[in-house]
Amino acid sequence: MNNTTLKEIASQLGISITTVSKALKGYSDVNEKTKKAVIELANQLNYKPNSFAVNLRTKESKTIGLIIPTIVHHFFSNVIKGILEEAEKRDYMVIILQSNEKVELEKKQINLLLNKRVDGILISLSNETDDFKHLNSILFNNTPLVLFDKIAKIVNCSKVMINDRKAAYDAVCYLIKKGYKKIAHFRGSYLPQNSIDRFLGYKKALEDNNIPYDPALVFVCENNDDFKDGYENAKKIITEQLNFDAIFAVTDLVAIGTIQYLNETGISIPKQVAVLGFSNWFMSSVISPALSTIDQPGFEMGKKSAAILFDEINLKKNNLPVTFQTIELETKLIERKTT
Amino acid sequence: MNNTTLKEIASQLGISITTVSKALKGYSDVNEKTKKAVIELANQLNYKPNSFAVNLRTKESKTIGLIIPTIVHHFFSNVIKGILEEAEKRDYMVIILQSNEKVELEKKQINLLLNKRVDGILISLSNETDDFKHLNSILFNNTPLVLFDKIAKIVNCSKVMINDRKAAYDAVCYLIKKGYKKIAHFRGSYLPQNSIDRFLGYKKALEDNNIPYDPALVFVCENNDDFKDGYENAKKIITEQLNFDAIFAVTDLVAIGTIQYLNETGISIPKQVAVLGFSNWFMSSVISPALSTIDQPGFEMGKKSAAILFDEINLKKNNLPVTFQTIELETKLIERKTT
Repeated sequence: MNNTTLKEIASQLGISITTVSKALKGYSDVNEKTKKAVIELANQLNYKPNSFAVNLRTKESKTIGLIIPTIVHHFFSNVIKGILEEAEKRDYMVIILQSNEKVELEKKQINLLLNKRVDGILISLSNETDDFKHLNSILFNNTPLVLFDKIAKIVNCSKVMINDRKAAYDAVCYLIKKGYKKIAHFRGSYLPQNSIDRFLGYKKALEDNNIPYDPALVFVCENNDDFKDGYENAKKIITEQLNFDAIFAVTDLVAIGTIQYLNETGISIPKQVAVLGFSNWFMSSVISPALSTIDQPGFEMGKKSAAILFDEINLKKNNLPVTFQTIELETKLIERKTT
Repeated sequence: MNNTTLKEIASQLGISITTVSKALKGYSDVNEKTKKAVIELANQLNYKPNSFAVNLRTKESKTIGLIIPTIVHHFFSNVIKGILEEAEKRDYMVIILQSNEKVELEKKQINLLLNKRVDGILISLSNETDDFKHLNSILFNNTPLVLFDKIAKIVNCSKVMINDRKAAYDAVCYLIKKGYKKIAHFRGSYLPQNSIDRFLGYKKALEDNNIPYDPALVFVCENNDDFKDGYENAKKIITEQLNFDAIFAVTDLVAIGTIQYLNETGISIPKQVAVLGFSNWFMSSVISPALSTIDQPGFEMGKKSAAILFDEINLKKNNLPVTFQTIELETKLIERKTT
C-alpha cells in the first residue's frame, strides 16, 4: 500500500498536521491558498485517508456481510444482484461468504464477520442448521441481522421470504384443477423451513380437494444436488410402477432432473406425467418441454432484505428503536408446457 | 455493536489495561490465575478485539476485493466459488462488486476498494473498458492485482485466462472436420480481449483450411444480453437467407438463444444447421438438443487467480520480489447433440 500520511503532506508544505487535516475536510478556518496547496499535493501523492483509522473513529465499517448456502445457483445469484444494487446506492460494500450448506461453516463465518465488525449481516440458512445460538450471538452483539429465504421463525430479527406454504398450496390446487389426481411430491430435505412449508402446502391442497394423501408418493431429495435428486427420484417412482399422473418438485432443478429422466425413457410430458417446478430459473424456459413453475422473486428478495438491513443500521446509528419486519414477497404461477 | 473494551475488563478486575492485553495474548509474565480471570470475563462480556485497531497495527485487512462484470452468470458464479474456497482456507474475506459491464462503475469500485485498503484485488474487466489508467492506479498504490478471464494484455500484473484464440481455432477446425463448410460466427462485442480472440481463432481456422472468410457470416452480439443476441442473430441470418451450415457462438447463452429460434422455426439441429457454444454452462447439457461446446474451467480459474493473489500478498508482506505470472488454463471440446 502507498502510505502517504497527513504528516508527509504537512512536512512537505511546512504546515501543521491539523491544518492539513482541516484543509482536506474543507474547514473554513484554513485559507483558500493553503487549502488548494494541500489538496494538490494530496492528489499528487495519491493520498488516501486511512480507512482503518476512519473506522476506529466512526465505528462504522460501511461493510455488510452476506452468508448464503451456495453460489452457483440462479436464485441466489439474483438475490446477490439485488443486495449489491442496494449496497452500491449507499456506497456500502458486501463481504460474501458461502456456507456450502454446512452449519459449522456458517458459525465460523458469523464469527469472522462479527470480528470484522461489519455494520450488519444478511443470512440465508444452510440445510443443516437446526439450532440458532450462533444467530443469537449476532443479536447479542447488537449487530443488525436480516434473514431471507431460508429463515428460522424463532430468531428475533427481520425476515424476508415468500409464503412457501401458500405458493405450494396454490400450485397443487392448479394441478388438481387441470385434472391431475395422483400427484407425487419430490420434497426438499427435512430441516429447511421452506422445504417443510412446501410439503405442508402440498398436503393441505390434497386434503382440501378430498384427495387422500399418500406418503408413498412423497420422495425426499437428500443429496444436496437437486438435478441428481430429481433424476434419481424420477427413476425410483417409475421403477416402483406407482400410480401417479403429476410430479410437484421442490425446485426447478429437481424438476429438470426429473424431466431429463422422463425424456430419456420416452415418457411423454405432460401427456403421461405433468411436472411442476418451483423458483423459475432461467433455464426452465429453454428446456424441452418448457417447465411450468412458480416464480420466486430472487432479485426483489435481495433488494428488500438489504433495504431493511440498511434501515436498521441507520436507526441504530441514530439510537432510534428498531421494529423487526417480516416481509412476504408475492409469487406467481408460470404456465408453460409441462402441465 | 457490543463494545466491551480492555478498559472495562481491567476496571472490573482491578488490574491494568496492559495486564489485560498481555493476558489475552497469553504472555508468560502474567500469572495463570490472572490470565484465567481475564479470559473468563472477556468471554462472559463477549469481548472481541477491535478489528479496526488490529488493522491499524498490522496494516492488513485480511480482505480482498473482487470486481466482476455480472453476477447472474453460470461461469462467473463458478469463478466466485473457486475464489471463496481459496479465501476460506486462509481465513480471508472477499468483498464482491458487480461492474455491470460499465467502466465508470469499475473505476468507482476500484477506488472504494483502495480506500478500504484491501490486501489485494481480482478483476475481470467490463465490456466497456478500453483504457487502463484505473488499473494502473492499483499498481501505483502497490496493491497486488490479478486479472482473470477478461484481461488487458498491457497491464503489468498477473493474469489467469484460457487461450481463447486456440480454443476457438480448435472448435472451428472440429466443425470443419465434421464436414461443415459454411460456418457463421455470432461474435461478442468489439472490446473484450476474449471476444476478439475467439473471432481471430475462428478466422484463422477457416484460412488454414482453405475456406474463404466471409464477413457477411459474422454477426455481432451487442445487447449485453446473450440469449437475446443469439435469438435475434439467428433470426437475422435465417431471414437474410444466407448460405450456411453451422454457427459458432461466442458463448453458450448465445448458442442457446440461437437454438431457441431454430427450434421455434422448425429448423433441424444439427441436420440443417449445427450449433457450437463456448463455456459449458450446466444448462447446455439439459436443453434439447444438448449443446456441443467448449468447457471453460471457471471454478479452476477462480481458485488459480485467488491462489496467485494470496501468494503475491504474502511476498509483499515479507518484502520479497514478485514475478508476475500469465496462466493459461486448459479448455476442452464437449461433443453433444448439436454438431
